[in-house]
Amino acid sequence: MSSVRDKANRRISALKSLLCVGLDSDVDKLPAVFLKYENPVLEFNRSVIRATGDVAIAYKLNTAFYEARGIAGLRDMEKTLTHIPDSVMTIADAKRADIGNTSKKYAQAFFEHWPFDAITVAPYMGFDSLEPFFAYKDKLVFVLCLTSNEGSADFEEQTLESGGPLYRSVLGKVASWSRNDNAGVVVGATKSTLLGDIRREAPSLFFLIPGVGAQGGSLEEAVDLGVDRNRQSAIINVSRSLIYPPAEVATLFSGVDDYERAVAAEASKIHDVMQRVL
Amino acid sequence: MSSVRDKANRRISALKSLLCVGLDSDVDKLPAVFLKYENPVLEFNRSVIRATGDVAIAYKLNTAFYEARGIAGLRDMEKTLTHIPDSVMTIADAKRADIGNTSKKYAQAFFEHWPFDAITVAPYMGFDSLEPFFAYKDKLVFVLCLTSNEGSADFEEQTLESGGPLYRSVLGKVASWSRNDNAGVVVGATKSTLLGDIRREAPSLFFLIPGVGAQGGSLEEAVDLGVDRNRQSAIINVSRSLIYPPAEVATLFSGVDDYERAVAAEASKIHDVMQRVL
Repeated sequence: MSSVRDKANRRISALKSLLCVGLDSDVDKLPAVFLKYENPVLEFNRSVIRATGDVAIAYKLNTAFYEARGIAGLRDMEKTLTHIPDSVMTIADAKRADIGNTSKKYAQAFFEHWPFDAITVAPYMGFDSLEPFFAYKDKLVFVLCLTSNEGSADFEEQTLESGGPLYRSVLGKVASWSRNDNAGVVVGATKSTLLGDIRREAPSLFFLIPGVGAQGGSLEEAVDLGVDRNRQSAIINVSRSLIYPPAEVATLFSGVDDYERAVAAEASKIHDVMQRVL
Repeated sequence: MSSVRDKANRRISALKSLLCVGLDSDVDKLPAVFLKYENPVLEFNRSVIRATGDVAIAYKLNTAFYEARGIAGLRDMEKTLTHIPDSVMTIADAKRADIGNTSKKYAQAFFEHWPFDAITVAPYMGFDSLEPFFAYKDKLVFVLCLTSNEGSADFEEQTLESGGPLYRSVLGKVASWSRNDNAGVVVGATKSTLLGDIRREAPSLFFLIPGVGAQGGSLEEAVDLGVDRNRQSAIINVSRSLIYPPAEVATLFSGVDDYERAVAAEASKIHDVMQRVL
């Protein structure tokens, strides 16, 4: 059993939470109270972590938001990792994958150089593009399966001659490739009618469920349908709707403390729903 | 017409070359003559650029090899870009793509912050995950189509109920999404029997063809089958077999000059084949 998976599941059961906080930290969307700092994104991330640390199972850092600012952004990503408690899973939301010798380098980047617990990867290039990630037995590797965007209809939902849509083939193959219990899938909550079916078909994979909140999926359904038989092995990502309070609220903040209180209150609401359903 | 595409095609016709040099610069594989430098990877890249600059149409920087060393590696990537002549296309071989607001950040990273001419992207998540890249009219966006690895059989080559393999569906959709003549596809040369068919089906896309050299595809066929009707709009990536001379050769180098002569000779051989076929 992957030690990261084990860590996450123990915390899920202890807290009755599936909350994954998405640190899609966009310098253009930060509340004004952070702009006085030399390093607004890092201060913002530290505030989000302080405000949600007691209910979060995972923090997911979307690499695009850091890469968009180049080395300064990646330095923020690197420093943010040092502020996340060891008990909480860290996910590099990187959507990487390439031929084997290249994927090996990506795995080195996100599992060794930057010590993330988990990564998201893209399945298009098949097994040998994912195997270098799976080789890290103690980590968790989330393979894109059915995503929460409109474009999922273009390829993911196309029916294969062998039966069923492409994403089902991805699901089945990922389950068969997972020998170390360190495989997961990304399944969007906007397709909640499908989430239950997918869970039944892959009872032992770990689920990362985006698409709640800004993208419109139902939280209750995502919790209920996403977990495994032990009411574990799933996390639900909330990002924009949690970390960016509405503008009319944000303008009232007189300092970082106010921001943290607002985010903590929102996180607590989400946690309440999760506790109730779990 | 994308100005990057135009720039590449003018150079292809002028030089009768399709050479794309892959800067998959692995610190563990550098010839010993570079190890005395404070910054071996950057010196190595500069040498490769000096040795191939008169015949190269493009330099492709594989982001994994830079990210594997974290910020130090990305600084090398950034500095390498400044040493590439303006007349040669620069490609971020990044294989990125995510939901729209995230892909927009990736596009900012590789088209604005780091001023690459082109990028490779993964199609799994569909149109809205690629559109933010296509929005840069003057750039080139290479979408993974049929790759050169074994894992291409897992999903890319799976037959769709609507007819034909998944990669053909990607090909057709990318062609239909390309309104600014700034779309390309990645088609592996290891499947040369298919390369001609794919070119006939997509006469107006720009082709990035990996898989020649270390991966075993035939160079002559890749040139002949990959180009469009104007004998343009294709580049063939060569990386390991060009930039890493065999160990028995590399041990004879007494300095960087020897390395550059060896790489220039190898590049010239490749160029000769390309000239002959074009």
